[in-house]
This record gives sequence, C-alpha cells and structure tokens, in this order.
Amino acid sequence: MSAPVATSPGAPWLGITMGDPCGIGPEIVAQAIADGRAGRCVVIGDVAVMRRALRQLGRELPVAQLHELVDAAQCPPACLPVWVPPGLPEGLVALPMGQVNDAAGAAAACCIEAGARAAMAGRIGALVTAPVHKEALAAAGVPYPGHTEMLQALAAAPGGALPPVRMMLANDELRTVLVTIHLSLRKAIDQVTFDAVLQSLRIAHAAAARWGQPQPRIAVAGLNPHAGEGGLFGDEELRIIGPAVQAARAEGIDASGPYAPDTVFMRARHAPPAHPGEFDIVVAMTHDHGLIPVKYLGVEQGVNVTLGLPFVRTSPDHGTAFDIAGKGVADAASLVAAVHMARRLSRG
Amino acid sequence: MSAPVATSPGAPWLGITMGDPCGIGPEIVAQAIADGRAGRCVVIGDVAVMRRALRQLGRELPVAQLHELVDAAQCPPACLPVWVPPGLPEGLVALPMGQVNDAAGAAAACCIEAGARAAMAGRIGALVTAPVHKEALAAAGVPYPGHTEMLQALAAAPGGALPPVRMMLANDELRTVLVTIHLSLRKAIDQVTFDAVLQSLRIAHAAAARWGQPQPRIAVAGLNPHAGEGGLFGDEELRIIGPAVQAARAEGIDASGPYAPDTVFMRARHAPPAHPGEFDIVVAMTHDHGLIPVKYLGVEQGVNVTLGLPFVRTSPDHGTAFDIAGKGVADAASLVAAVHMARRLSRG
Repeated sequence: MSAPVATSPGAPWLGITMGDPCGIGPEIVAQAIADGRAGRCVVIGDVAVMRRALRQLGRELPVAQLHELVDAAQCPPACLPVWVPPGLPEGLVALPMGQVNDAAGAAAACCIEAGARAAMAGRIGALVTAPVHKEALAAAGVPYPGHTEMLQALAAAPGGALPPVRMMLANDELRTVLVTIHLSLRKAIDQVTFDAVLQSLRIAHAAAARWGQPQPRIAVAGLNPHAGEGGLFGDEELRIIGPAVQAARAEGIDASGPYAPDTVFMRARHAPPAHPGEFDIVVAMTHDHGLIPVKYLGVEQGVNVTLGLPFVRTSPDHGTAFDIAGKGVADAASLVAAVHMARRLSRG
Repeated sequence: MSAPVATSPGAPWLGITMGDPCGIGPEIVAQAIADGRAGRCVVIGDVAVMRRALRQLGRELPVAQLHELVDAAQCPPACLPVWVPPGLPEGLVALPMGQVNDAAGAAAACCIEAGARAAMAGRIGALVTAPVHKEALAAAGVPYPGHTEMLQALAAAPGGALPPVRMMLANDELRTVLVTIHLSLRKAIDQVTFDAVLQSLRIAHAAAARWGQPQPRIAVAGLNPHAGEGGLFGDEELRIIGPAVQAARAEGIDASGPYAPDTVFMRARHAPPAHPGEFDIVVAMTHDHGLIPVKYLGVEQGVNVTLGLPFVRTSPDHGTAFDIAGKGVADAASLVAAVHMARRLSRG
C-alpha cells in the first residue's frame, strides 16, 4: 500500500486510460483514485463504466464528467474526474465483463489515442495506461497489437518513421532498459547488434534528461556469463557491446561496461543509505536479465515505462485479467506504482 | 556481520582449507575464526601461514596444531586449530604474497585433497574451501583447473566415472541450481538438453534429502521470455524443459514448471513472514538467470555450493584477490556465509 502523494500545485494532472472496459482496468483505476493513492489524475474513459467500477468496489464516490481535460483542476476533492474522449463508442456498460468484444477494443483504442494527443499537447503531464486486450483490439480492426506500437504510430510525424522506443522496467531501487524483449533467447542474441545497443543508450540518456537527470550513469550489462570473461565465454562483449559503449561515450553519454550480468544489477541497486547505487540505469541485453532483478522484491512494484516517446508513459505490469474482472478483487498496487513512477518521471 | 553461531555439541567440526597461501584465503579464514563468526571449524593448512595471517590482522590468538583432525574437539577455546595435511610443502611462509607460485598451488591442492578425504570419511562435517588460483594450480602440475573438477575426481570410484555435479548459489532467501555455467549464452542454449535438465533435478532432489528436505519443492525456470509463451518465443520449454520436468515427476521428484524466468525467483524468495516462498529450490537454465537474483541483495551473501558430491562443500563467491592479499583488509563476510551455509546443509 502506498501513501497518498503530494504533487506540485501547478503541474498538469496525469491522465489514466480506463483500458479495456470489460477487464480489470476500470476497477483498479477507480480504486487507486478513490483511495487517494493516485494523487491528481483524470480518467480518460466512459462515465457509466467508471460508475459501475465504483459500485463493484462498494465505493460511493461521485463521478465528475469533465468537458475539457483542463477542467480537472476545478474538480472538487473526493470525486472521480472522467474525461470522455471524442468518438468513444456508446453503450459500453452493457457489454459483458470478462469477454473479448470489438466495441470494448475500439473504446480502449479511442482512449489511448486521445490520451497520447493530450500528452503531446501538454494537457496532461503524463499518460498511464490501464490494460488492454490484444484480441479485442484486433476485433475492432485496430492495426496495432498493443499500446507500444500504437503510441509509436501516434508519436510519428505524418508519413514519417516510427520513433525507436525501448521498454524500461523500473521500481524505487532499479531502472533497467531492455535491448531485446519478446522473442526467443536464441533470436534475442542475434538482435544484440551495435546499432541496437547504441540506440538503447541514446534513448535511455535522452529519457533521463526529461526526468531531470541530464547525465545519468548508465551501466551496460554483458550478454554472457562474466561479460564473456575476455572472450572465453562468448565474444559479443568484445565485438558488439564494448564498441557500442565506446561510441556512446564519444557522444557524451556517461555509459560504462559491459559488466558481468550477475553483479551489475546489485551494484546499481539504489537502497540508501546503506546502498546508494553506483548507476542510475542498467541497459540489459535480454528480457530476463533485466526483469529478474526488478521483479525480485515484488512484481507489484515493477512499472513498465516506454522510453523514446515525446511524453512519459507508464503502465502496470499485468493484463486485463478477464477471469476476475468486475468482481472488485483486482489489486491496484501495480497501477498505483505506475502512477507514482509517471509522476516522478514527468516531475509532476 | 553475522553473530557467532551455536552448533550441535556432538556434530563433527567443519573443515576449512586455507586456499592459496599467497592470496587472501589464510587471512579471511583466520579472521572468521578469530572473530567467533565461524563456529567450530578446523583449518586445513599451514601453521606458519596461519600465524602470519593472524599477525597481518593484528590478532593475538594462539594457533593450536592438531595431530589428528578428531583432536579438534579437545582444542581449547579462543585459539585457531590447524591440521597440517600429510605432504604439505614446507617453507610456504617465505613465498611472496600476491603472486602466482607453484609451491603455493601444490599446497592448496594438498589441502583440498586431504579435506575431501576427511569429509568422505566423516572426520569433518563439511568442507569449506577458501579461494585457489587457477594459474598456481597449473604451475604445480595439478591436472584440474579448480576445486569442482578436483573434488569430482576425488569423489569418483577408482577408475570409475566422475559423479555429475551442479553448482548451487544460495543465500538465506533463495537457492538456485544451474543447468549450465561457464560458457557463452549461445553455447549454454545448446547445452540445455533433456538429460541436463533431468540430471539437475535429480541432483538437487538428492542433495536436499542430505540437508533434511526429502521432498523439496523444485521450480524449474524456463529459458525464454515468459517461458516461451506457448512456443511463440522459443520452443525449448515445450521440447526439452517441460518433458524433463514430467520425467522427474514420474520419478517422484516434486518438480514443477517451466515458469517464466522473470517471476519464478521472486515467487521462490523465502523472506517470512510476509513472503514464505513457494519453492525450496529453483533450477535455472543459465548462469545469469540463476545468479542475478541470488546476488541482487548483496554479493557477500551468495554462497557457492557444489551438489552431487558425497559430502557438503561450500565456498565463498570470490577469488584469491592477489591485489590486496596480506594487507589485512579482505572482507571475510562471504567466507563466513559459506561456513554458515555448510553447517546448515550438513545439519552440523
């Protein structure tokens, strides 16, 4: 459980999309705000769906429908501010919970698009996204499998290239940026290229400036045991990772490594005063090298952050959980952690 | 810092080899015993080298030379019991600290051999080994690159096959057994075979019975992200790891998985009362999947345990540190952790 958070008076509110209306998104969003654990946030979603979520939780909080996002500041305390994005499908509250539905997918996508545009226009300080369902998006004809691809497309200049992004998983102690994510370990090794590592370093460096760390200390983890032990246990460190670190340093990035994967996360761990942490960010070559240490102390603390977008975007590290949706039993802890991380990274 | 430990009155003493006499081994062994942090241990090593180590630490403890290992029980308190193994080279104290030396390598090997034989004969309850230097062993003509290979050979029946062993890294919270260790990640993937996984499960299961857990709950971590996501991110889980888990279960081993690597260690983490841990042991496919979580909370807590030998053997997770050897500044924490783990695993 997190305490209510203090936010700077002048900072813009954060936006939280409700996610798939048939999943646990609406209820965890309602719970986080009703409990005062989210601070100043406005929901981007459907009024009736959010009212139902409050009922499912047994909460009596009134819902305040905003005409404009900027009206959030005028919202009285102890209410749930909801902004309904243009084009949101109607009748969502009639859809059965816990099932894939095209209208639900369309609604989720509509909220994401409106949220991204609001974030790019500075009308919200950061975007936190509740879970969507891949199949519902597909059923609605949304041409993106998930949040990241959709946000990349929205952030691209018209007709321009997609901005390269990286997944960061972060908690209070550790921030890891992943060079490769959702593919087999064999293919991941093939995708550890000079360009992929250097680009990861550039993205991490630029993102840190946004959250107020213009010169982050970035450690680069090796791929192989003992970072290859001088070539004895693999040569990717010598051929690829080391040169990419040097190229980044030549650009003024405070990168170092490659370090042995088994100890670099421990060295970066920021748990003051006993353990202040030697690095601000660790760039990891594989999904599990990076995620194992972040999740080790508790999965609910690991927040998914998309780096490379022109705004701060975080999300909880779980899905729509259709099996328990609408029962009021879903745990809002990971969403609350995502909100806190979004606020910290956007300095809101 | 660990508190002095209580040991069962009737249990045999533990043996600690001094390691390479020109490295930090003698001084960390002396420190652990002089501080009362090691409990009832006898040093297998050289008397003059151990006296020098005490001087380097500024300790006035007398050294008690034992004629037989079993005399340790008659050793007065507040002294350092040393048993000199037959055939130990003389003049070791004259060798320069911090340098590779053939006599030092021969001495280290002599202590290991005597320690292993004593452990197999039940004259010590477990063997803790201080660090040796690969090059010194080689210079002495020792045909093994390190402890593990030498201990395997000593444990084999004359002319018989080497007993299969596995490295376990353990601390108070987590015990991970590694299917592959010191080779490139690419080659490690090739060595994740049905036989290697099944043998790891058998070794872990049998070792746990020795330390008083006849039916340990063994979780098997996958190799790929999300344990392959049903074949989408690699098929080793479906082709190899899953079948090996099933074969182990058919033998009565309480194995389960494969689980997603990024959360299985967190699930196994034993930190009661808040987090009792779902599993007793996690079998990991790669060096770094297994070592990252054990080391995350502090490298000095990670103890190296060799499973598959007919006795308990532990070692600190660091080397001879020639650069600081003889200066009295080396940290004995990892050795102390190795002693405590040896005592726990041998129920001494």
